[in-house]
Amino acid sequence: MRGAVLHAPGNVRFEERDDPKTTNPTDAVIRTVATCVCGSDLWDYRGINEVAEPAPFGHEYVGIVEEVGSDVVTVQPGQFVIGSFFASDNTCPNCRNGYQTSCLHREFVGGCQAERIRIPLADGTLVATPGIPDEQHIASLLACSDVMGTGWYAAVAAEVKPGRTVAVVGDGAVGLCAVIAAKELGAERIIAMSRHASRQKLAVEFGATDIVPERGDEGVARIRELTGGIGADAVLECVGSAESMQQALRATRPGGNIGFVGVPHDVAIDGQELFFSHVALRGGPAPVRRFLPDLVDRVLSGRIDPGKVFDLTLPLEEVAEGYRAMDERRAIKTLLRP
Amino acid sequence: MRGAVLHAPGNVRFEERDDPKTTNPTDAVIRTVATCVCGSDLWDYRGINEVAEPAPFGHEYVGIVEEVGSDVVTVQPGQFVIGSFFASDNTCPNCRNGYQTSCLHREFVGGCQAERIRIPLADGTLVATPGIPDEQHIASLLACSDVMGTGWYAAVAAEVKPGRTVAVVGDGAVGLCAVIAAKELGAERIIAMSRHASRQKLAVEFGATDIVPERGDEGVARIRELTGGIGADAVLECVGSAESMQQALRATRPGGNIGFVGVPHDVAIDGQELFFSHVALRGGPAPVRRFLPDLVDRVLSGRIDPGKVFDLTLPLEEVAEGYRAMDERRAIKTLLRP
Repeated sequence: MRGAVLHAPGNVRFEERDDPKTTNPTDAVIRTVATCVCGSDLWDYRGINEVAEPAPFGHEYVGIVEEVGSDVVTVQPGQFVIGSFFASDNTCPNCRNGYQTSCLHREFVGGCQAERIRIPLADGTLVATPGIPDEQHIASLLACSDVMGTGWYAAVAAEVKPGRTVAVVGDGAVGLCAVIAAKELGAERIIAMSRHASRQKLAVEFGATDIVPERGDEGVARIRELTGGIGADAVLECVGSAESMQQALRATRPGGNIGFVGVPHDVAIDGQELFFSHVALRGGPAPVRRFLPDLVDRVLSGRIDPGKVFDLTLPLEEVAEGYRAMDERRAIKTLLRP
Repeated sequence: MRGAVLHAPGNVRFEERDDPKTTNPTDAVIRTVATCVCGSDLWDYRGINEVAEPAPFGHEYVGIVEEVGSDVVTVQPGQFVIGSFFASDNTCPNCRNGYQTSCLHREFVGGCQAERIRIPLADGTLVATPGIPDEQHIASLLACSDVMGTGWYAAVAAEVKPGRTVAVVGDGAVGLCAVIAAKELGAERIIAMSRHASRQKLAVEFGATDIVPERGDEGVARIRELTGGIGADAVLECVGSAESMQQALRATRPGGNIGFVGVPHDVAIDGQELFFSHVALRGGPAPVRRFLPDLVDRVLSGRIDPGKVFDLTLPLEEVAEGYRAMDERRAIKTLLRP
């Protein structure tokens, strides 16, 4: 089969790779129906993260089960399934506590920009849809595999509740999905920080009530202005840089909460600043599995449409162009179809 | 009147100071019934914090109202009152959200190791007891002014709930009061980290179910052993050093919570470690005012007896000895009576 491989920064090739197999009795192999390029892949693509090359790429997927190992009981060949970027058994104490991305047996699901994918711990990891979904839902179901699940976790980690004022830092696909999550969880006011017209437009469509194009101290000042001088109840940090974390910390009111889901790069949080801020912080790789059944329902019932974050669709074999378009910010997020 | 003044590290003198007055119409002046020495005072006493000297010292107090400014309506001369180390109006948005130590008009109440104290924003700050309390309750009421309120906040910030497993880092007065708080809030298991026999004994008396004398990585390993390998649901960090914060972070289970109330000294939290831990952090100067009415009730009804953390009582004029005893760890906490 064929799949995307990163050979060097900026150099992604679509090439022949070994066919995945059910190497463990708990594995499944799926035939990819859709996959995509993640903002976090760009850290590797740009050479900011060190990567052992050549590296099979991609960690978002929906597909049809082709084969299951002998221990797999909850999914079967022919079903349409969604999973998250970490495989989890969904039975260990951390899974039962709702933190499947800290599963004691977790395994990263990599190399998903490919025609077929091996899914470890298939019983705990995969969620099957009732029947094969319509073509119109594929993009939104794929979004649930990571960005929608991650935006949802940002909102849950920041304890978004009905009536709250929420600010979202970051207007990438995760930030935009975080707007959807804040809306669904009942936020009264949703301030999206964005200075790109197309992303502002989508943020408003998803439920943002205010747009703040300013960044840094000016952005913080604007949010304070909009919140009676004290800051937002909840801030969803969807970038992962030192600047965005600083911005989040200063834009949250005393007693408020930050959910941070951008993988931190060179971020150190000053203990005294955090202390005197009275702000709570919770982050991490989103336990998407916790939210998947609910998110799938919301997509299939037409309540949410996170698939709109994909503004470029390409054949899987043009994956390299998908990366280029996102790297050059010509696209928010690239969907790939085999 | 006379009060304690820090002249240089290790040099506290009890000397003549100006009588406090109601300089603002919202002030009250109280006659001190009891005051004490705080673990956080030791940072100044030891010269670790830089202090502009000479500095009037102390921030914990109970007393009798002597005089009130013309705007004060909720307390009156003759009443027995308790307040926190930050005066707060108790009406601003941050106060209404329960974070009175982030009051938009907050003012530090300093120089309390003295015969009389000026209390700013008396209406928002002071809580009067019903009648003059018995002598047996004075120590516990004084403890509510800071250490008991701070231990309570640690438990609330860490979302201690019935059935939870809680670990307390730090066996000073705040850590010991945090054990009381965890017990009152329904924790099923309370692990106190302490290697001092007298403090271990008090921790057990306050409700600790397990004692861990190990520190650092060994202490973390012990807590993981006691919690099925994953860590405690809630960790109450009552020290403020880089080591204690690290210990707290590694002893908390994914999805768990840390409440940190030791003022951080040279603490920087690594963004990636916090991210992958899935742990939530909330700290800060405890909004003691939020908890005071409830804590006063619990003391007067005999439910809690945090005054036991005072293991040395001295006449106020011997305040210097009170500092020495705590500095040399001969006393957990020194109570001072004028």
